[in-house]
Amino acid sequence: MTADTGKTATLFQKTPLELDSGAMLSPVTVGYETYGSLNAACNNAILICHALTGDQYVASKHPITGKPGWWDRLVGPDKLIDTNKYFVICSNVLGSCLGTTGPWQDNPATGKPWGLDFPVITIRDMVKVQAALLDHLSVEKLMMVIGGSMGGMQVLEWLATYPERLHSAVALATAARHTAQNIAFHEVGRQSIMADPNWNEGRYYDTDERPRKGLSVARMTAHVTYLSEDALTRKFGRNLQDRDKITFGFDADFQVESYLRHQGFSFVDRFDANSYLYITRALDYLDIAGRHGGRLSDAFKNARHVRSAVISFTSDWLYPTSENKAIAHALNAAGVPVSFAEIEASHGHDSFLLDIPAMDQMLRGLVTAAATSGGVE
Amino acid sequence: MTADTGKTATLFQKTPLELDSGAMLSPVTVGYETYGSLNAACNNAILICHALTGDQYVASKHPITGKPGWWDRLVGPDKLIDTNKYFVICSNVLGSCLGTTGPWQDNPATGKPWGLDFPVITIRDMVKVQAALLDHLSVEKLMMVIGGSMGGMQVLEWLATYPERLHSAVALATAARHTAQNIAFHEVGRQSIMADPNWNEGRYYDTDERPRKGLSVARMTAHVTYLSEDALTRKFGRNLQDRDKITFGFDADFQVESYLRHQGFSFVDRFDANSYLYITRALDYLDIAGRHGGRLSDAFKNARHVRSAVISFTSDWLYPTSENKAIAHALNAAGVPVSFAEIEASHGHDSFLLDIPAMDQMLRGLVTAAATSGGVE
Repeated sequence: MTADTGKTATLFQKTPLELDSGAMLSPVTVGYETYGSLNAACNNAILICHALTGDQYVASKHPITGKPGWWDRLVGPDKLIDTNKYFVICSNVLGSCLGTTGPWQDNPATGKPWGLDFPVITIRDMVKVQAALLDHLSVEKLMMVIGGSMGGMQVLEWLATYPERLHSAVALATAARHTAQNIAFHEVGRQSIMADPNWNEGRYYDTDERPRKGLSVARMTAHVTYLSEDALTRKFGRNLQDRDKITFGFDADFQVESYLRHQGFSFVDRFDANSYLYITRALDYLDIAGRHGGRLSDAFKNARHVRSAVISFTSDWLYPTSENKAIAHALNAAGVPVSFAEIEASHGHDSFLLDIPAMDQMLRGLVTAAATSGGVE
Repeated sequence: MTADTGKTATLFQKTPLELDSGAMLSPVTVGYETYGSLNAACNNAILICHALTGDQYVASKHPITGKPGWWDRLVGPDKLIDTNKYFVICSNVLGSCLGTTGPWQDNPATGKPWGLDFPVITIRDMVKVQAALLDHLSVEKLMMVIGGSMGGMQVLEWLATYPERLHSAVALATAARHTAQNIAFHEVGRQSIMADPNWNEGRYYDTDERPRKGLSVARMTAHVTYLSEDALTRKFGRNLQDRDKITFGFDADFQVESYLRHQGFSFVDRFDANSYLYITRALDYLDIAGRHGGRLSDAFKNARHVRSAVISFTSDWLYPTSENKAIAHALNAAGVPVSFAEIEASHGHDSFLLDIPAMDQMLRGLVTAAATSGGVE
């Protein structure tokens, strides 16, 4: 990834980052963006956590695709998360490929890209790096940490690991552990990348070749899980592509086929295949309850002061309402004040990225309440 | 595929088979198995139609894997489909790779394997070949045609195309058309095969290499859609493979990962990658209503004498109850006598292949009633 990745901080230079695996990492660079300014009381900071293939460009133009930020609709001056009022931080997660340390970066010990020698990471490791970034930015406490999907998992790890640094927390369309089906779909994606001869056991950085085909198929498979059957039917149905009838061939006859091919091929320009392996692995390893003797509520027992909210979407079959409700129940059982809402939306898992008025209404209430109760303004 | 494929018939030698695409095919060889004998009244024949990766070995040992037939539990002497009483026929579908003409076979025009020059086929084309096989076996009319999944689609095409040759018809876990999500998952599988350099545009038969990795990933993806989330959770959950804890690596840590890898790698020994492309394409092209001005019931208007039944399974998310119910409604609207049952089963789409007592009970009733009303014995 050769794009200009904006702001970068170099952390863990003196004291290395101890990962959940036991491996040590030093230094760790972090690509991040900020919007607005920290107020004098230092109580208006909001950390936004991105999803698997997301990035720090939550409200600014993506340096490779040139597209608007992935939550540009919600974040900015006078928008729902108003950057005139709040100091918004979004950083590229550990293991990813837009400025933050990952398998694409040079291993300081060898001077060559890590590849598969990069240590396997967890969602909690990502959160530890975010906490260090907050130190670097002189942010002691967050008015809010918020994120959807893998971003929501980071929110849960914040609640479990650094509750004292939170005033409020909002997790959308997420889960506290990966199910067998979640793992299965990720494993298929990883095997697709590893089946590509250009992957070459992860050593492709010094060649002109990239495992584009393998990564593209992995993305296509994952993308099907992000949309509901209903959304696919409404968007495409059995509509044909630029043709009156089927061609009796293997070209993309159906619009859904050419849409998926486009999703796959455009993804490989902005994402690193090894990063995809590492991040999907981190997701599969997530099992917050497992770390607490099987009781999810035990993970949240020090978060009783944090105003929390969990939001699910009716048509999300990747992280369905049942998984989100289990999180809300655990927070409740731990004595954490929690709001839960299942929002009617037909777009599937990706609903949290889309224009869903009921979600906006809920988020607006949560942000305002967090600001008021947190003493902002 | 070099295994002994049992009985073979060579059909369409004088008059070629006209495919739905308009292409002509001559001759067509068909690999098939029969069990029991045709009675004097010629009214005890049952045609069993197999699913995507199934074959004619419904009740006999598979020549490559050595495993028992895929419905061995139901078909045989004194079994539910009693081969002491009925003459059971099962043939490998057109386009497949166990004795029936497909892309692996030599193109008579060139003397070399067809590869992608093989014409694209449809489910109705498969049924036309089965009808010709019945002629070859002197079976004028079937006491029953029965099948699950793609086998059920063949049953529907029998009802639409050759109703006069049917006394009864049973379709399980099926659909009358592929939805956008169905097409999407198949497209991902096809792209996975085509991404494998060993696929080589379908020209791999004269080399020692096969697109094993691509076909394996395609099978893994499809296999996830055959099982319910609940079945995966009960079978595997987050159980680890031969280990006490996660290894922080990319080996198959979770049992579900090694299970899927096994499903993928064992599949490539018994199936041809090009056949997989052709058969998935036939499934995607299926749209019986589309051929009848959008009214599925119009497809069945000549089947009013056929005792029919449609069976779905609660946990099947590939061809859910709604799709099966739409078929039952259409049969009903066409005046075809139809029984419909949604069977409580937690195993997902593959339920029709498993030991589900409620399914057996229903099938036993349907077979007995068909035999009695059809005047058998």
